[in-house]
Amino acid sequence: MVIILRPQVNYTILKNILSTIQEAGFTGYQAGKKAIVVHNNDETLQAKLKTLEGVENVVQVKSPYPLTSREFHPENTLIEVGGHVIGGDEPTIMAGPCSIESLENIIEIAEAVKKAGGHVLRGGAFKPRSSPYSFQGHGEEGLKMMALAREKTGLPIISEVMEPEKVALVAEYVDILQIGARNMQNYPLLREVGKSGKPVMLKRGLSATIEEWLMSAEYVLAQDNPNVMLCERGIRTYETATRNTLDLNAVPVVQHLSHLPVIVDPSHGVGKSQYVNAMARAGIAAGATGVIVEIHPDPAKAWSDAAQTIDFDQFNQMVDDVNRIAAAVSPTLSRTTVHA
Amino acid sequence: MVIILRPQVNYTILKNILSTIQEAGFTGYQAGKKAIVVHNNDETLQAKLKTLEGVENVVQVKSPYPLTSREFHPENTLIEVGGHVIGGDEPTIMAGPCSIESLENIIEIAEAVKKAGGHVLRGGAFKPRSSPYSFQGHGEEGLKMMALAREKTGLPIISEVMEPEKVALVAEYVDILQIGARNMQNYPLLREVGKSGKPVMLKRGLSATIEEWLMSAEYVLAQDNPNVMLCERGIRTYETATRNTLDLNAVPVVQHLSHLPVIVDPSHGVGKSQYVNAMARAGIAAGATGVIVEIHPDPAKAWSDAAQTIDFDQFNQMVDDVNRIAAAVSPTLSRTTVHA
Amino acid sequence: MVIILRPQVNYTILKNILSTIQEAGFTGYQAGKKAIVVHNNDETLQAKLKTLEGVENVVQVKSPYPLTSREFHPENTLIEVGGHVIGGDEPTIMAGPCSIESLENIIEIAEAVKKAGGHVLRGGAFKPRSSPYSFQGHGEEGLKMMALAREKTGLPIISEVMEPEKVALVAEYVDILQIGARNMQNYPLLREVGKSGKPVMLKRGLSATIEEWLMSAEYVLAQDNPNVMLCERGIRTYETATRNTLDLNAVPVVQHLSHLPVIVDPSHGVGKSQYVNAMARAGIAAGATGVIVEIHPDPAKAWSDAAQTIDFDQFNQMVDDVNRIAAAVSPTLSRTTVHA
Amino acid sequence: MVIILRPQVNYTILKNILSTIQEAGFTGYQAGKKAIVVHNNDETLQAKLKTLEGVENVVQVKSPYPLTSREFHPENTLIEVGGHVIGGDEPTIMAGPCSIESLENIIEIAEAVKKAGGHVLRGGAFKPRSSPYSFQGHGEEGLKMMALAREKTGLPIISEVMEPEKVALVAEYVDILQIGARNMQNYPLLREVGKSGKPVMLKRGLSATIEEWLMSAEYVLAQDNPNVMLCERGIRTYETATRNTLDLNAVPVVQHLSHLPVIVDPSHGVGKSQYVNAMARAGIAAGATGVIVEIHPDPAKAWSDAAQTIDFDQFNQMVDDVNRIAAAVSPTLSRTTVHA
Repeated sequence: MVIILRPQVNYTILKNILSTIQEAGFTGYQAGKKAIVVHNNDETLQAKLKTLEGVENVVQVKSPYPLTSREFHPENTLIEVGGHVIGGDEPTIMAGPCSIESLENIIEIAEAVKKAGGHVLRGGAFKPRSSPYSFQGHGEEGLKMMALAREKTGLPIISEVMEPEKVALVAEYVDILQIGARNMQNYPLLREVGKSGKPVMLKRGLSATIEEWLMSAEYVLAQDNPNVMLCERGIRTYETATRNTLDLNAVPVVQHLSHLPVIVDPSHGVGKSQYVNAMARAGIAAGATGVIVEIHPDPAKAWSDAAQTIDFDQFNQMVDDVNRIAAAVSPTLSRTTVHA
Repeated sequence: MVIILRPQVNYTILKNILSTIQEAGFTGYQAGKKAIVVHNNDETLQAKLKTLEGVENVVQVKSPYPLTSREFHPENTLIEVGGHVIGGDEPTIMAGPCSIESLENIIEIAEAVKKAGGHVLRGGAFKPRSSPYSFQGHGEEGLKMMALAREKTGLPIISEVMEPEKVALVAEYVDILQIGARNMQNYPLLREVGKSGKPVMLKRGLSATIEEWLMSAEYVLAQDNPNVMLCERGIRTYETATRNTLDLNAVPVVQHLSHLPVIVDPSHGVGKSQYVNAMARAGIAAGATGVIVEIHPDPAKAWSDAAQTIDFDQFNQMVDDVNRIAAAVSPTLSRTTVHA
Repeated sequence: MVIILRPQVNYTILKNILSTIQEAGFTGYQAGKKAIVVHNNDETLQAKLKTLEGVENVVQVKSPYPLTSREFHPENTLIEVGGHVIGGDEPTIMAGPCSIESLENIIEIAEAVKKAGGHVLRGGAFKPRSSPYSFQGHGEEGLKMMALAREKTGLPIISEVMEPEKVALVAEYVDILQIGARNMQNYPLLREVGKSGKPVMLKRGLSATIEEWLMSAEYVLAQDNPNVMLCERGIRTYETATRNTLDLNAVPVVQHLSHLPVIVDPSHGVGKSQYVNAMARAGIAAGATGVIVEIHPDPAKAWSDAAQTIDFDQFNQMVDDVNRIAAAVSPTLSRTTVHA
Repeated sequence: MVIILRPQVNYTILKNILSTIQEAGFTGYQAGKKAIVVHNNDETLQAKLKTLEGVENVVQVKSPYPLTSREFHPENTLIEVGGHVIGGDEPTIMAGPCSIESLENIIEIAEAVKKAGGHVLRGGAFKPRSSPYSFQGHGEEGLKMMALAREKTGLPIISEVMEPEKVALVAEYVDILQIGARNMQNYPLLREVGKSGKPVMLKRGLSATIEEWLMSAEYVLAQDNPNVMLCERGIRTYETATRNTLDLNAVPVVQHLSHLPVIVDPSHGVGKSQYVNAMARAGIAAGATGVIVEIHPDPAKAWSDAAQTIDFDQFNQMVDDVNRIAAAVSPTLSRTTVHA
């Protein structure tokens, strides 16, 4: 169950609630300032808790990730970023280079994103690289370039943060903090982005189950940060014809289990530029809220991820296709409703 | 390279071609009566072969599955079954029960398929079951029931064949022979369905790579049977939230590599009825030629695969959704063209 | 439960047993002439069945593969082949070429196997190949060569059979019928090798779960053929540094769940000759009953599987190492006992 | 290539070396104070570099993880911890509870480890947990308890560190810093443990390739910390009969590619206590340097990982078995030599 607290509950009242739970033989975990989670739905306890001072409501939830679950929060979560609503009926388009290369480059790309009708500019400043001897990103300089591109175009920006100590720094520049696949279970980092209050995009780990992914989202939500979106970016399988296997099955499954918006990343998911459009279309048709893709004016010359990066013409075509698919998914029902 | 033979080449002429190949240090493999495959593209040999009696043409192909490859056969393969063209612009809808249960049941279902605008009736007569103590299908009796359902509705029928000795029997009744996932590399069976000349639907093995799948198709094509369609039905991954992982990435990849039509099976792919529609839509948006689904008037009472079977209302909705998506994929280009 | 029948039960008696089961609301499945399987352990029914004519005993079994389970048959199954006992304390060594190449070649190899202290000669006559244009084995001619090698050395022989129609032919020559990984769920083939009464080695499918593997063994046992050994030969994972991932975890798990002997195949399992010895040692240390490996006088010239084939010196070293490990596993307990 | 620098190279000399590399068209990456890595083996450049001031030697290496590779460092790395040598002929035994529960508990366990002949005490103080509502470990208090257990028994201790900011704190207490599977690609953390100079045990990520694992080790070595051991702890596959799939194939592969010691963790690898001994034996037979296991006086009451934890009797038996296997692996060659 989730015990929802009234605003401004003081220490004595809180202690009384926690003691009541403990006396009943259970443990209460504080999930931020607004909620307490108990791994049980005991009805006697529930009735008793409802009578206590400081308790707004008690909600039965069976899920191991209560705040993230649709059981607890039946409506879709909507996240507003720079005037655009993520999780609503309009599909969200995020695009940009894998690595930020130079100010000219990021501005040229931002303008292409804007012109095509995209909503968010992506770009890597702190880059997690398999080799210590690869380019690790421009760091804060890169974030400054992105901020200038935002000024020019009005597009909100998203960039990855890799360690708890850098959350404050990155949050100063970006509109959405990205947690990369390698860090999906970096719990100190999840807690820190939770505390930041900024919108967070949580990528699915390379071989994370959907349950583990939602449990990781719970780490962020349990810090009173409700603005989490999930990003399916391909899982690791035995298949080598594609870089990863974009798992679109996860889209309706997550929408069934959780109220958080789901974005798909066909660039990393399939890993070859000629298949990106097809997988973007498929992601939207599966009910995803949006797509995030890697674009570059000359993909062959991109500093990283060249093989999966599309050019501006391909991007324009993709935006058109994605919008047409979104419109076709369902004229009567909400696009993101799971309906068999 | 593939050496295309003129019709009615006699033994002496054929022997001369094979000797010429051997003298050049290579091996020629007969692929039916119409082609010889050499694992090499030596230009001198190619020039020489073109001058030989009985040789219609010589085509350079690098692929390990030459007849199946788009290199060899750039146009999409179209397969006509019962008046419907598989591989064309109209999405193909195949539907029916997992197991054929009774004559009334299969007729009721066939009528629902017909009414909804479906094109092919599926149904299991010979069932591969993990346990020797599960219902193994009605066998030939089941096929007779399907044939009656075809008479009633005009729908062509598809059913699985599991062993070489039964190919002739099953082919007598069905319009399309299905090779199940467990038999994707049952080479004697592939040769036999090849020889039958009937259209074949080859399901991808549970953990087959795309290359292995196309190599298995080659076994059928190498018996002079060009009427092969491929069916993506989910691969095995670590994820347990879904029965399998429907690998939609395979759709554009296969279309890039091969000219054969690709059908997706969201029922087996995702394995839970509430997600079937979303995955059917996504499959079509990815560019698939059609979908095959399990339907039943009362899924909870289906003899097998109950959890993944949809009812008639859900099926009607799915057909509508799939058709709307197909129309939206691209108004200008062919829906099955791979375009990034 | 498993109902064990008395010898020579006639039709009327059998029918009475099956009717009694049906009247209780269950289904009885005949597992050969000696047993009936019911997916339930209802005690009233059990008591009643024990009183019926023709019933020797009734054994409670919860496993979905009752005859294969250790619940039903607590002692290890021992299989005697050519004077050697598979499943006993001495580790079984099977070795030979991937493909039988020529009579001289197979005799040379057989003599090396014999000399090193091996027990069974392996060799491929009917070869399942991914490409229709690869060498498919010498077929019956190959089996004749193996039979001559057996005559020369006294070693029993094992070879693969790929289709039901060929079981009688292959069984005429070999001492053990091998079911390859691709055919683990080829049920008509499993039934046929069951009926043959010959010892069978059932390889685990490329991505078969342990439960599916044991269910496939049940198909053979349900034909009154108790002489089944299981062979772990590597599963498909995302790792590409090895050909497959030899899953040694399966060894103690299978020994816990089943009474059938387990052989490991490090050649296919790891797929690179330099790692074969280490994995053979590890397999025996995990408790496997024996190993099967590919050897060749000159691996680089082997017609197939060259990369994973070891030469005679490496084989001699491996036999020594494996025997030393087997002796070290446990001086007091049986080597194949699962003891944490 | 790797350019090995003379001790105490000053800035001007270093700058000259880096410029020489750049003028030749390549990039030089500093790997600590002692080496520069260039992703190329150009012979002209190599000859030139050898003549420069400050250059001790230049070594040709093709591997993407040069310092970690056996190409660069042919001898096994030996790591001395508390008087015991990891990587030598005696197998290393590390054992302890999943979570440190109380001072009495950890001391009782430490004494059992010592008595059985174990070498290192493991215990979790900072615990990465999938759920934010699970026990997250005693933190620094836990480390203090471990330090007291070390005082009592003389056993060196190993514990996990989860974030860069905590490295200094954890390093103050432990003898070996453990990087958990979830953090294998947490690069800021890898750099920080590298800088600490402490021995590091790097667990393989849940679905990391062997190459990615060795690249992560390179991050540590590139900070002048040569004391890295690798720990195989099971990979994620489709199999559900075991918690993970302990990939023993990785043992000989890593020993072939790298000079770093390899430890196996059968507790997490197979995840069920009854199979831990078999997999420990198999790991040592495959050539691993040691094993790390979870033990508890009463596993059923362990605060975490109860199902995979063995009791003291089982542990004593395992130590005996492992030592007997280690002695048997090879009397003439070094146990960790890869010899087919």
